[in-house]
Amino acid sequence: MKKLLLASTSTLHGEAYLAYLLETLEVFFKDVKTITFIPYARPSGISHDAYTALVAKAFAKIGKEVIGLHTFEDARTGIQNAEAFFTGGGNTFLLVKQLHELAAMIPLKDKVTKGTPYFGTSAGSNIAGINMQTTNDMPIVYPPSFNTLGLVNFNINAHYLDPDPKSNHNGETRETRIKEFHCFNTTPVVGLREGSFIYIENDISTLKGAFEARIFEQNKVPYEGINLHF
Amino acid sequence: MKKLLLASTSTLHGEAYLAYLLETLEVFFKDVKTITFIPYARPSGISHDAYTALVAKAFAKIGKEVIGLHTFEDARTGIQNAEAFFTGGGNTFLLVKQLHELAAMIPLKDKVTKGTPYFGTSAGSNIAGINMQTTNDMPIVYPPSFNTLGLVNFNINAHYLDPDPKSNHNGETRETRIKEFHCFNTTPVVGLREGSFIYIENDISTLKGAFEARIFEQNKVPYEGINLHF
Repeated sequence: MKKLLLASTSTLHGEAYLAYLLETLEVFFKDVKTITFIPYARPSGISHDAYTALVAKAFAKIGKEVIGLHTFEDARTGIQNAEAFFTGGGNTFLLVKQLHELAAMIPLKDKVTKGTPYFGTSAGSNIAGINMQTTNDMPIVYPPSFNTLGLVNFNINAHYLDPDPKSNHNGETRETRIKEFHCFNTTPVVGLREGSFIYIENDISTLKGAFEARIFEQNKVPYEGINLHF
Repeated sequence: MKKLLLASTSTLHGEAYLAYLLETLEVFFKDVKTITFIPYARPSGISHDAYTALVAKAFAKIGKEVIGLHTFEDARTGIQNAEAFFTGGGNTFLLVKQLHELAAMIPLKDKVTKGTPYFGTSAGSNIAGINMQTTNDMPIVYPPSFNTLGLVNFNINAHYLDPDPKSNHNGETRETRIKEFHCFNTTPVVGLREGSFIYIENDISTLKGAFEARIFEQNKVPYEGINLHF
């Protein structure tokens, strides 16, 4: 019964917020009037209200009303009442800390598992995985746990970037980082390039959008693919 | 009495491991015969033994013997016996988790505070700061705390990269990430470019090497600088 849309990024270079996804979102959210927005990742420290206003402006284009989850006294009430969810990008550590501290992670998982549509971009997609341990974000706050929603049986690396053969920089590439993750973890990782997204219905995951994914499995050479069943 | 050398990177593009620092290290370590190496950051999951061998080969060029801290049954004994320290780069989450779990963080801090020379590169430099919350690394393991040695009163962002005006990528720049850190933390952050390092003696921090640092203080516009006193 799960129905998810997990995008690498909210915004493509030079385009408006969510512009490249609006047609897809119109179909994805066709049965709902309101979308409950989870603003806790707060990109650049934007306030919950300002982030919700930005999202509401984008969704107004397809006739949807947006309700900020932060406007509920108890986030769990907001989750129970939701017709559909959108979790926006920003800092995954901040998002995960908030969801755990509000005791919202399990109710959100339960509600989505029972069929409430869930859309995520970037950090909002990361948290659909088993844990947040393949985020690119900086650990600006300390979450009580790295566990996330586990709505899919893999992790996502959003904004996936291929190694740059011309780089003189000695920092680790994304590929090196994900291989290090697999020294200690067995969860497969889907490197999702900007412009790509995953549509999940009835536990069938389909890669959509501009690019193949870069797929990392423990003890395997990373490969290009569209098959997301592990 | 503290004496520290904190480098952004171990290796410059196209050069051998530690090559650009060997002359500096010869002076820095002139009074010691042995260096106790802290290998826990394990870049690319390399074993403690293999990482120590790589470091030993580099230090042999300046006549120093290297002892892996992992060869002691109790890391605290290794720390007490050390003439000098080197902590190598790799994954900061892994390094910090190990140091906390071995109850080695405080003994290491105490020993260095009392004058035992400490050299770090990348993750090994990050942990000299107040906490590891400005690392670029992926959270591949969950440390019991993000607190680190606090040998200096600022944080370091190693392998600092300037924003690329030509980039079409929508992932956060390093500057954006550090600004997000300052939404929740007051600790100043020194963005240390590859080729630069900080020398600290008697609580005086001096920037050395190829570049100025990019300095981030809460509620200030980031600036170029060499003054590391906050």
